[in-house]
Amino acid sequence: MKLGRIALETPDGPEPRLVLVLPEQRRVVDLRKASTLHLQGQGATRAAALRLSEALFPGSMSAAIALGDRFLAACQNASKHRIDDASLSMDGLKWLPATDPSIVRDGLTFLKHIRQFHQKMGLTPTPALLQIPGYFKGSPHTCIGHEAEVVWPEYLQRMDYELELGWVIGREAHNVRPEDARKYLFGVTIFNDFSGRDLQANEFAIGMGPTKCKDFAYGIGPWITTIDEFKDLGAIKMSVRVNGETWAVGDSSETLWSVDELIAWVSLDEFAQPGDLIGSGTMGNGSSLEIDRVLKPGDVIELDVEGVGVLRNRLGQKSGDRWWPTKRQPFM
Amino acid sequence: MKLGRIALETPDGPEPRLVLVLPEQRRVVDLRKASTLHLQGQGATRAAALRLSEALFPGSMSAAIALGDRFLAACQNASKHRIDDASLSMDGLKWLPATDPSIVRDGLTFLKHIRQFHQKMGLTPTPALLQIPGYFKGSPHTCIGHEAEVVWPEYLQRMDYELELGWVIGREAHNVRPEDARKYLFGVTIFNDFSGRDLQANEFAIGMGPTKCKDFAYGIGPWITTIDEFKDLGAIKMSVRVNGETWAVGDSSETLWSVDELIAWVSLDEFAQPGDLIGSGTMGNGSSLEIDRVLKPGDVIELDVEGVGVLRNRLGQKSGDRWWPTKRQPFM
Repeated sequence: MKLGRIALETPDGPEPRLVLVLPEQRRVVDLRKASTLHLQGQGATRAAALRLSEALFPGSMSAAIALGDRFLAACQNASKHRIDDASLSMDGLKWLPATDPSIVRDGLTFLKHIRQFHQKMGLTPTPALLQIPGYFKGSPHTCIGHEAEVVWPEYLQRMDYELELGWVIGREAHNVRPEDARKYLFGVTIFNDFSGRDLQANEFAIGMGPTKCKDFAYGIGPWITTIDEFKDLGAIKMSVRVNGETWAVGDSSETLWSVDELIAWVSLDEFAQPGDLIGSGTMGNGSSLEIDRVLKPGDVIELDVEGVGVLRNRLGQKSGDRWWPTKRQPFM
Repeated sequence: MKLGRIALETPDGPEPRLVLVLPEQRRVVDLRKASTLHLQGQGATRAAALRLSEALFPGSMSAAIALGDRFLAACQNASKHRIDDASLSMDGLKWLPATDPSIVRDGLTFLKHIRQFHQKMGLTPTPALLQIPGYFKGSPHTCIGHEAEVVWPEYLQRMDYELELGWVIGREAHNVRPEDARKYLFGVTIFNDFSGRDLQANEFAIGMGPTKCKDFAYGIGPWITTIDEFKDLGAIKMSVRVNGETWAVGDSSETLWSVDELIAWVSLDEFAQPGDLIGSGTMGNGSSLEIDRVLKPGDVIELDVEGVGVLRNRLGQKSGDRWWPTKRQPFM
């Protein structure tokens, strides 16, 4: 199944809705509406049907996934009935981030990218990279969906994209071992970890992790494909197009750490929540930095992942008139 | 006002409740109950009084603060009426984290700590520290309250505490300038950024920020003191006691970045949410690392902050039988 989130207009403003996506038919099914109609057909009053349907299909994908097996069963059930009365054309939809993670986490696993990133940034790789699966935590408040415009903060000169798989967590994970990790994986989406390379060097030097070089936008979408639809998570074809031109082609093979190890590491004495997203790290050549290309405002980035679809975002014009800290004098 | 969160038993299990804290009387007022009783006294039915009171005083401090001025007005109103019928002794309460931030953020501002931390960890300070206010992002899923036991993951040898102020955000902050930042500050709590120093060196070397060296526990509490009760945020007395012995005494002066700059930086092209916590960074001498002391399981850490109170936590026994990643071979 392919599951996404869209915004629908209501008298109180836009409201998030979960949809079943039927890419071949270019239609989506509004799951709450399909469920409500189906329940009414079974004798429920409209108010009671709405109440149960809203509990099964809230606007939050994370809250829905948190229902466990019941959510997938409800999706399957709702999609069997009254699809025609609850479906919408994909044309002109406003897509929201496919999931609304409690926190963004992003790994570093593709060997080719790790090699090339260090070369291009002029960094010496630390031996620590071989000991633990590094990941950073990103703000959950700047996630954007398919077709949303990317904020380009004025203090970032060298804007970049990053082509990644987004691993979506299906159950609360706490001290999960790698051999059990696959049971905690709900599905796969596409993750674009937009990055300001000039500021990133300074932020990584401090060691506390990226902040302003990444927390302005995380692309998540266009939707989630449930995990049962993938035969081999290590052989997913991936590519990047910029303004329609192919800039990179690759796949999900050759990683330093497996997705199972990444989930185990994240869950170690911590909690990954249903609907959380863990980025796979960037595919080799999956950033403009690695291939010596430069982006400009207005460029359209398309990330194509086999079995999911295409996540498309346009870079906005640079924002203006931001405060910036005054440089301090040395004190040590 | 001093506002906190406790857990009360219900037929469905423990339920979080917001309380007004009266430390001198050693009592707390259950705000939802006080509001319900007051509304009933004004002619509301019990069901309607409960409905409104639950909306005004949800179990989440963040959700309550998100109501804006209306929340503080409701606290003041509820605390004027029916206090006796809705109050509880502080003895034996189960305290929850005073706020439930959407994400933990923690700055690095106290000059003495920055100097001493680099010396003790054998690190050369990067010039980037003088250019931007570094902060890290921590998991919101391992916050603990006053009197809660601290998980000690078995893979951490050198456990440490960090004495910090917790700045609690009062309104959604986005591109706020330092001169306006104070309006976004709801109050002050105490923040204990427990840290595993041995693993921290490896994680900082990777540059993606702390993960397993910090995400196991963040102490937040015992409650929040609203910002109107502080005369000078740069002159708050702070101290640490371990097993009753004073290990450090200091105050909130001598910082590299002000709280106003920290809020402005966090909000830059990002969103700080109501109820979010931004740690001030560690006070000079506010960690055992800096004063060459070593902690052991069972030690009781008390962080004392003038105008707030004392946040007390005991270190648990080491957890056992955790998975740990297998070291990789060099590949570049």
